[in-house]
Amino acid sequence: MQLTILGYNSAIPTMHSNPTAQYLNIRESGILIDCGEGTQVQLRKAKIKFNSINQIFISHLHGDHVFGLPGFLSTLALLGRTTSLTIYGPKGIKEFIENQLKVTQSRREYELIFIELHSTQSELIFENKKFEVYTIPLNHRTYTNGYLFKEKPLQRNLNIEAIKHYSEIQTCDYQNIKDGKDFILSDGFIVKNESLTFDPPKPKSYAFCSDTMYNESILPIIKEVDLLYHEATFLEELKKLAFKTGHSTALEAGSIASQANVKKLIIGHFSNRYLDYNVLLEEAKQQFKNTELPITLQTIDI
Amino acid sequence: MQLTILGYNSAIPTMHSNPTAQYLNIRESGILIDCGEGTQVQLRKAKIKFNSINQIFISHLHGDHVFGLPGFLSTLALLGRTTSLTIYGPKGIKEFIENQLKVTQSRREYELIFIELHSTQSELIFENKKFEVYTIPLNHRTYTNGYLFKEKPLQRNLNIEAIKHYSEIQTCDYQNIKDGKDFILSDGFIVKNESLTFDPPKPKSYAFCSDTMYNESILPIIKEVDLLYHEATFLEELKKLAFKTGHSTALEAGSIASQANVKKLIIGHFSNRYLDYNVLLEEAKQQFKNTELPITLQTIDI
Repeated sequence: MQLTILGYNSAIPTMHSNPTAQYLNIRESGILIDCGEGTQVQLRKAKIKFNSINQIFISHLHGDHVFGLPGFLSTLALLGRTTSLTIYGPKGIKEFIENQLKVTQSRREYELIFIELHSTQSELIFENKKFEVYTIPLNHRTYTNGYLFKEKPLQRNLNIEAIKHYSEIQTCDYQNIKDGKDFILSDGFIVKNESLTFDPPKPKSYAFCSDTMYNESILPIIKEVDLLYHEATFLEELKKLAFKTGHSTALEAGSIASQANVKKLIIGHFSNRYLDYNVLLEEAKQQFKNTELPITLQTIDI
Repeated sequence: MQLTILGYNSAIPTMHSNPTAQYLNIRESGILIDCGEGTQVQLRKAKIKFNSINQIFISHLHGDHVFGLPGFLSTLALLGRTTSLTIYGPKGIKEFIENQLKVTQSRREYELIFIELHSTQSELIFENKKFEVYTIPLNHRTYTNGYLFKEKPLQRNLNIEAIKHYSEIQTCDYQNIKDGKDFILSDGFIVKNESLTFDPPKPKSYAFCSDTMYNESILPIIKEVDLLYHEATFLEELKKLAFKTGHSTALEAGSIASQANVKKLIIGHFSNRYLDYNVLLEEAKQQFKNTELPITLQTIDI
C-alpha cells in the first residue's frame, strides 16, 4: 500500500501547498481521497495516470475538499474515459457534481456512480477480494467521514523446496495449501501447513481522518492501523478555537494516535497562521513519537 | 492599463500552464477575466491582492473558464471581505455559483452581485468616470462573450509654465482649462487651450476574445484596440476541427487582428497536441506581424 500526499493545507490557499487530496495505491487499485482545487495538476506532477483511479472517497462537502472534483471529472471525459467511476461522499454530492457538469456542458462516455453516505455509525462501504473500506464518522461542522482502508489477508506462499519432499503433493493440491490447509499423506501422516508454506506479507491498513474535532469514538475503528492521517489545524493554545471550528489541535491528534496504538501518524490541514509547521510536529510528538509532517507529492510506503 | 496572464491553456490541464484567467489593472481598478481552476493560486504567485478585484467578467460557462470561481469566492469570504463584488457572465452563472457556495456552506459578509448577459448584440455593460466595458458577442458551442475594456479620455494636463504668464488665471480656473476650455482675458483676448495644456495620455483599449470560431462580425467592435487577446486553439491544417469545435486557427486569429488593425495580438488557448507553441505563433504572424505568445504571470503594459 502506498500513499501519495497531493495536498494538505487548509481552506485558504498558499503558493506552496495544495488543499486536501491524497492518492492511495492499494493492491494495484488507485483511489483518490478528497479532491481540493488543483488536484488534477498535482496528479500530473506526481505522474499518476488519471485512468488508474476507479474510486473517489470524499470526506465532506467543504470547498477545500471538493472544488477540484468537477475539473478532474471533466478532464476524464475529455481524455475519452469509458470505465465507470464510483464516488463515495455525503448525501448531496451527486446533485452538487451533476449540476456543475450539466451547466458546464461536460459530456462523458463513462458512468459516474454515486454512493451517498448518511449513517453516523461506521459501516463497510466497499469490499473486494483485495481490500475493504469502512467509514470513520467524524465530528466536524458538517457531516463528515474519514475512511479506513484495510487490505485483506493474502494467501500463504508455497515453500516449493519443502513440498518437493512429498511426491504425493500434486499441483492440484496447491490451492488448498495456499488457503492454509494441512496435507494428509496416504499413510495418514498429517503434514502441517506451516511446514509447507511461508507467511504472506501482513495486511496493511490506512486511516484517513479529515476535518474533525477531538473524537475518542473513532479509537476502536482506527486501532493499530499502520498509518493514520489526522488533521491538526491548530496548536493546543488555540484549543477553544479548534473546538468552535470543529478542528483538532496537534496535541489532540497525537493523543488519538497514541490511544489507538497506531504505527505512524501524519498530521495536516494546518491553519495558515503557522509559517513553520515544526511547532505543530513537536506538539503532536509530545503525545506520539512516530509523527511526521506531510510532504507534498511524496509517496509513503505503508 | 496592465494585463497579467494568469493562465491560457485549453481544457486539458498540464503541469506547465493554467486554464484561462487574466487580471486587468485599468486605471487602478482590478478586474478578473475568466477564472479557470487554480486561478487563486496564480493570483498569489503574481502577488495580486485578492481584494483589489471588484469585478469579474466570465466569457462562458465551460469548466476551464469557471471552475476556479467557487474557490476564489470562498477564499474572499475566509479573508473577511466586506466590499461587494460584481460578476458579469452568461445567464445561469448566478445559480451555478450560488448552488456551489450553498452546498459547501461558504458564509460570506460581502455582497455578490450578478449581471447575467443574454444579448447577442454588443452592449455597454459597465461605465464609470475612468473606463467602459462592452460585450463582444462570440460564436462558440455555448453562449459566449468577449469583453472590450476602454479607458475614457483623461483631463488635459496643465502647462504651469505657460499659465504663469497670465496673472489673471486663478487656481479656480484650472478645472475649466483641464476640461479643454479656452481662457478669455479681461481685454477679450482668447488664450487657446492648447497653449495652456499638454495632451493627456491617449486612452487605451483591450479586447479579450475568448473561445470563438472565426467571426468577422466582431471587427467593428475591436477595431484599432491597443491589445487584442484572441484564441488560437489549432493550426490552419485543422481548420475543420476548429470549426466543428467552435474554435479558431492561429491563421484566423492573425487575420482578425489584421482586419481590425489592432496594435498588438496575443494568442492563447492552445490545444494540448502542440508541444511547441512557436508553430502557432509563426502561423498567426503570416497574417499579423505584431503577434506574441502569452507568458504565464507576465504583466504587459498596454
